[in-house]
Amino acid sequence: MKKSTKSHVVIVGAGFGGLRAAQRLRRSDVDVTIVDQHNYHTFIPLLYQVATAGLEPEAIAQPIRSIIHSSNVRFRLARVSGIDLERKRILIDQGEIAYDYLVLAAGSVTNYFGLDSVSETTAALRDLNDAESTRSRILHAFEEAAAEPDGLRRAELMTIIVVGGGPTGVEMAGAIAELRKHVLPHDFPNLDLTQARVVLLEAADHLLHGMHPSMQATSREQLERMGVEVQLEAKVAHADSRSVTLADGDRIAAGAVIWVAGVRAPPLAEALPTTKGALGRVAVEQTLQLTGHPEVYVIGDMAHVGGPDAPPHPMLAPVAIQQGDLAGENILRHLAGKQLKRFSYSDRGTMVAIGRASAVASVYGLRFHGFVAWVIWLAVHLVWLIGFRNRAIVLVNWAWNYFTYERGVRLIRDDR
Amino acid sequence: MKKSTKSHVVIVGAGFGGLRAAQRLRRSDVDVTIVDQHNYHTFIPLLYQVATAGLEPEAIAQPIRSIIHSSNVRFRLARVSGIDLERKRILIDQGEIAYDYLVLAAGSVTNYFGLDSVSETTAALRDLNDAESTRSRILHAFEEAAAEPDGLRRAELMTIIVVGGGPTGVEMAGAIAELRKHVLPHDFPNLDLTQARVVLLEAADHLLHGMHPSMQATSREQLERMGVEVQLEAKVAHADSRSVTLADGDRIAAGAVIWVAGVRAPPLAEALPTTKGALGRVAVEQTLQLTGHPEVYVIGDMAHVGGPDAPPHPMLAPVAIQQGDLAGENILRHLAGKQLKRFSYSDRGTMVAIGRASAVASVYGLRFHGFVAWVIWLAVHLVWLIGFRNRAIVLVNWAWNYFTYERGVRLIRDDR
Repeated sequence: MKKSTKSHVVIVGAGFGGLRAAQRLRRSDVDVTIVDQHNYHTFIPLLYQVATAGLEPEAIAQPIRSIIHSSNVRFRLARVSGIDLERKRILIDQGEIAYDYLVLAAGSVTNYFGLDSVSETTAALRDLNDAESTRSRILHAFEEAAAEPDGLRRAELMTIIVVGGGPTGVEMAGAIAELRKHVLPHDFPNLDLTQARVVLLEAADHLLHGMHPSMQATSREQLERMGVEVQLEAKVAHADSRSVTLADGDRIAAGAVIWVAGVRAPPLAEALPTTKGALGRVAVEQTLQLTGHPEVYVIGDMAHVGGPDAPPHPMLAPVAIQQGDLAGENILRHLAGKQLKRFSYSDRGTMVAIGRASAVASVYGLRFHGFVAWVIWLAVHLVWLIGFRNRAIVLVNWAWNYFTYERGVRLIRDDR
Repeated sequence: MKKSTKSHVVIVGAGFGGLRAAQRLRRSDVDVTIVDQHNYHTFIPLLYQVATAGLEPEAIAQPIRSIIHSSNVRFRLARVSGIDLERKRILIDQGEIAYDYLVLAAGSVTNYFGLDSVSETTAALRDLNDAESTRSRILHAFEEAAAEPDGLRRAELMTIIVVGGGPTGVEMAGAIAELRKHVLPHDFPNLDLTQARVVLLEAADHLLHGMHPSMQATSREQLERMGVEVQLEAKVAHADSRSVTLADGDRIAAGAVIWVAGVRAPPLAEALPTTKGALGRVAVEQTLQLTGHPEVYVIGDMAHVGGPDAPPHPMLAPVAIQQGDLAGENILRHLAGKQLKRFSYSDRGTMVAIGRASAVASVYGLRFHGFVAWVIWLAVHLVWLIGFRNRAIVLVNWAWNYFTYERGVRLIRDDR
């Protein structure tokens, strides 16, 4: 509440990028306020494990106030509804907050490609609520199947469709196939689980678009070995909570439909009166500044660096983290009258978990698959997860899941 | 789905009593179906720790299907809307289920003593959803306080009122006082937490009604030493989400009001056309059978054993467990043509946790308080918790909370 003569940096969003920007500004001579609609940071790369009953939601979330313990960083729980660039204020539910510097790091939302009804009916995987709801839907479908006397309908209920063959879709499909193989047979001794289908639909002619062709081929192979029906060049015309209709007219009935076909910039980006790149991302300079508003930085999934014609960076945590770091540094440079740095992405690699002891990884140009890739995947995700308690909880769960072939957290909580 | 000539025992409710009855009937010559509206068992004694950010909800819940792995026990996810005693069928959302024997173990619901509006506005603590919602309300009140410029309103928002001085109220008030002392000062460095109040209201002239007078006095002393304002003979005339009005006209404004003033039999008990005891509990014979319907057993919080004039048993897990065991045994005796046993409660003791290294306990007639009682409390709750994974997760959390003076799970999730 106290007035200060220090510059006030407002960071919108406590994801990977926003938190890193705040960390860069810790103990420096500015006041920082992080604004987020949740009081916790979500470790999005592990959402699919929450959705498949492998981890509890709380294991991959960390209270923001526990992260920012620093005297010059404050937190404000609020939903940001707009930005007044001229008056240098962000608009929130209960008023507005003035800034000297602004870092926009509000991430992305699920891309429904204009199919509005799909957004209201299918399951998604962008935040903890989505993940918990997806978990409930999958498990509920099997509970319904167990009570269903009609054999045909029963087989439909045991069909889970994943729309989108990017990293999230591949990880989801693999994790559901593991559930079907190791967990559900014990839970549902009266169901014939050979009738249970896991269908992965991808519009392109390959999975994991943008990754190395060998990773694309290996992941498909591994998924098919696990019994996932991978359908490439499958364009979705319509989807709802219990079916998908393809562009060629085919209709697949299911117990649950999970939409992970892609992401796009959030509504907050749309509200900005500036140039947009692909997927509605905000075009910014190489310094991450908004053209004409050098006090405004846009980073992570929201940002398209280098103008709308430059090749966009992938919407991944490492990009957001590196940009958060640079935004913080450039603000300090600006204050010190130094020249700003330009962003250059240092790509250390990508990795996708497929199943038990199975993954594909590309690290510093080297490619791994199978058990080695899986161990790298485990280690990297454990190290990047925020909070010692969370790491311990995740380790207990992973060990439990691995040695017992179980998933401890298969609760249906759809009655809230 | 297959027909069988075996007797079909339907158990309504997978709480302590229902699960124990099922366990008693495992591998015996009957078919058992457990029906519950959730697919998980909830360890109710630790709900208050979920509500105060000490444990994740998933740590105290266990999937029912993972508990009943037995070839003659099945599970059905359904809400029971009524019972047709003449046709021997329970009515569920999607139809009905026929039984030869019925065990009613549907537990209890919060008692609002006819104050309908209170049920719609205050926070409660009867299931996982309640606990998570209570956690969100407490934390949200402090988030609002942090953004509140008016000093008086700020102090009001930092006031948490617990209504009801039974075991749950005492444990809640103690845990909130610990939050205020150890966790919130780090989270909210700009708030003056000496203004934060924890108020415990009890209508009687003592806490922990029904327990030994020394436990009543000690718990009050320990709570007051922790800064809880214990108000005895405080009768509540009205309560809503942000205030309580007492019968003497006093009004206390608050950031959250938590209603744990008592429980009563669930609506399913009301729907039964039989004699009721106090709190709407169903009057049953000493054998736990419904008078005139020897094939129907009622156990746990729902049951008033020995007719409406007999002294009622306390609504506690040990009673439900012992009755569940006896109901199972009496069904087998009935089938074998043997004489049924009468219920006799073996009271091994009671215990209430108050705070860090602080509790009161009465075990086999011996009374403990302070650190010793707390260690007993920890051990007993860990042993009774179902599932090895849950025990490991709870241990990690308790160790973390104890050594760091932290509470890891302080997430606000009120947007579902």
